[in-house]
Amino acid sequence: MTACISARELEEAGAVLAAESARFASFGWMRGTSGNLSMVLSRAPLRLAVTASGHDKGELTPRDVVLVDGQGAAVHGGRPSAEAELHARVAALTGAGAVVHVHTVASVAMGRREPGGIVFRDLEMLKGVGQPAHDVEVTLPVIANSQDMSELGDRLEAARNPGMPAVVVAGHGLYVWGADPRQARHHTEVVEWLLELELFRR
Amino acid sequence: MTACISARELEEAGAVLAAESARFASFGWMRGTSGNLSMVLSRAPLRLAVTASGHDKGELTPRDVVLVDGQGAAVHGGRPSAEAELHARVAALTGAGAVVHVHTVASVAMGRREPGGIVFRDLEMLKGVGQPAHDVEVTLPVIANSQDMSELGDRLEAARNPGMPAVVVAGHGLYVWGADPRQARHHTEVVEWLLELELFRR
Amino acid sequence: MTACISARELEEAGAVLAAESARFASFGWMRGTSGNLSMVLSRAPLRLAVTASGHDKGELTPRDVVLVDGQGAAVHGGRPSAEAELHARVAALTGAGAVVHVHTVASVAMGRREPGGIVFRDLEMLKGVGQPAHDVEVTLPVIANSQDMSELGDRLEAARNPGMPAVVVAGHGLYVWGADPRQARHHTEVVEWLLELELFRR
Amino acid sequence: MTACISARELEEAGAVLAAESARFASFGWMRGTSGNLSMVLSRAPLRLAVTASGHDKGELTPRDVVLVDGQGAAVHGGRPSAEAELHARVAALTGAGAVVHVHTVASVAMGRREPGGIVFRDLEMLKGVGQPAHDVEVTLPVIANSQDMSELGDRLEAARNPGMPAVVVAGHGLYVWGADPRQARHHTEVVEWLLELELFRR
Repeated sequence: MTACISARELEEAGAVLAAESARFASFGWMRGTSGNLSMVLSRAPLRLAVTASGHDKGELTPRDVVLVDGQGAAVHGGRPSAEAELHARVAALTGAGAVVHVHTVASVAMGRREPGGIVFRDLEMLKGVGQPAHDVEVTLPVIANSQDMSELGDRLEAARNPGMPAVVVAGHGLYVWGADPRQARHHTEVVEWLLELELFRR
Repeated sequence: MTACISARELEEAGAVLAAESARFASFGWMRGTSGNLSMVLSRAPLRLAVTASGHDKGELTPRDVVLVDGQGAAVHGGRPSAEAELHARVAALTGAGAVVHVHTVASVAMGRREPGGIVFRDLEMLKGVGQPAHDVEVTLPVIANSQDMSELGDRLEAARNPGMPAVVVAGHGLYVWGADPRQARHHTEVVEWLLELELFRR
Repeated sequence: MTACISARELEEAGAVLAAESARFASFGWMRGTSGNLSMVLSRAPLRLAVTASGHDKGELTPRDVVLVDGQGAAVHGGRPSAEAELHARVAALTGAGAVVHVHTVASVAMGRREPGGIVFRDLEMLKGVGQPAHDVEVTLPVIANSQDMSELGDRLEAARNPGMPAVVVAGHGLYVWGADPRQARHHTEVVEWLLELELFRR
Repeated sequence: MTACISARELEEAGAVLAAESARFASFGWMRGTSGNLSMVLSRAPLRLAVTASGHDKGELTPRDVVLVDGQGAAVHGGRPSAEAELHARVAALTGAGAVVHVHTVASVAMGRREPGGIVFRDLEMLKGVGQPAHDVEVTLPVIANSQDMSELGDRLEAARNPGMPAVVVAGHGLYVWGADPRQARHHTEVVEWLLELELFRR
């Protein structure tokens, strides 16, 4: 079982991820060189394009991307973020085709206020993550941060709400996923909107 | 009585609505794929151009628009949002030539704080929705959300303040209308400004 | 004593004011069609270019400007805002070469909290309006709103702090002035920054 | 020991600083004409390019830059900001290759709340300034403001935390440094993000 991802395929994925990154960076969600985005290029074996580490996320080029396997290790060289392992795990676990990891102020602020999980209810915007707008409590899990990606992955797997394509990592930021980069973008925008709203809770 | 709306007319309306959508999206008022805009193309029978459902509202093209009748049903195919019915009803009820529906954080946050209606008073900005700037209380109605557009329309009709071209749908967002897309834009900006101000009320 | 302002001079002023307006509009300080800007073209007799009323302040062209006299009346036709009278009065009273009137949320929110005037102290940013950064209290006056420009002008004249090129009109917005449009811009940015800071006062 | 900085070298540095300034200005961190940026061009003797005083920081050209020595005095003419002296001192003291001075609302608001220093802990974003994300308290020093750059420099030197490339000047703004303009930018974004987060502390 081999995955032949051509350089061109990888660069096309890099162009998509660079555009999505620039968009999130313009919102202030990737300050410094924080955050990273990925896109699944093959399922069996699992291969993802992940944005390269250490770059300004508003200035990526189509080549600032690394091909990684299901453990987040580089397949053909390059320097993926340590978090590539978690991207790969989210893709394997959820079947997502794209994963967004951003550092938003609202996610960290709300994660502090509601360390046991952030509950939303009766909000039309919940439909944007596939939930009903009425009469149902939807929890966005909050998990403790770790530098051990395997530990962080275990926490994500244990805490994950199948009805919510996102997890807050306390003191850190947001992981969000979707079928493709555009859906992952929309899920990210919806979850961030929900968090910004709840900051106004009294 | 027939309404002959040419493909070109519809596409011209689509270009206007795409530009207005991109503007609102840049403000963060149409996160995910939320919200929709419409423009009346004929009064008798009522025909509106409504933005197509499911698209990113910052990336619409002039063709991402559907022609609907007074019940919000597609006249020549395409997939209007379920909310097209409410757009048509607002246009019929108020005589408006354009309707804006956006999901702003301020409208949902203030709708939660003031579920009985949000009262403004002594604000120059009220002139932007045709009200006096002094000594008059102006109420922005808040109605309960529903997935039944007919029920939501009844609530809007019952709660509507003839002196305020807008309604907050609780847990959902804002409907605003005007004589044409530009006036609807200005009304939307004014109402949102008023809501953002009131979030600072102590 | 006559003031011969050529059509070209007026249009050049219009180009400057259109660019300044677009800038302020991009900050959200001129929502709807609110606010207006002016520039002195002649001192004796007093002649100002004032942005035309009713336009979107992000979309002005160099021609969307009216020549007014010291009473704010149109010299060669066109429709100045009623507030042109106040612009002219500020220019006469203070010697300013440019006047900015914007509707910012922070100015109205702070005017509500501190109706007797907003006091700043020990802030480096005060140097941006010509004040010392240390040990001096600087008051930004707040005056009651009025639709009578003559009354509003009397209040501004009575309340004005010669050491602060700005006044908050309660429930309305901000008047700021400077030697030329660029200095008026900088004064506006400084005053708005100070107001946004004070919203965090506990 | 002489430092021969060519006009071309200085202008190249000016182009970099103009681009960085425009970026920070677009975030609202350099309102009015506030703030200044610098870049080390030679170490022995110390020579820095510093943005010229009094200009709009969103409109600098590559020539709006002054060459200064280790005391912040102009080497070949031009008008450096008085703060150039502090830039030079930070560069000498820390070995930084670039210094950013911006006036952010969050830095002044948090400096008021925590005049003894702002403590961060358990935040992934701390890695962006070279600190661990867990179990360590990291203090961002707050020093009193002064118009005497020598006094301000003494305070910075005395209060400086070697593990934090930034200092808040109370009632004034933020000094941040890094190995080069890009790293200084990233440090600035990270520190500002941390401050914006802490404004949500209850």
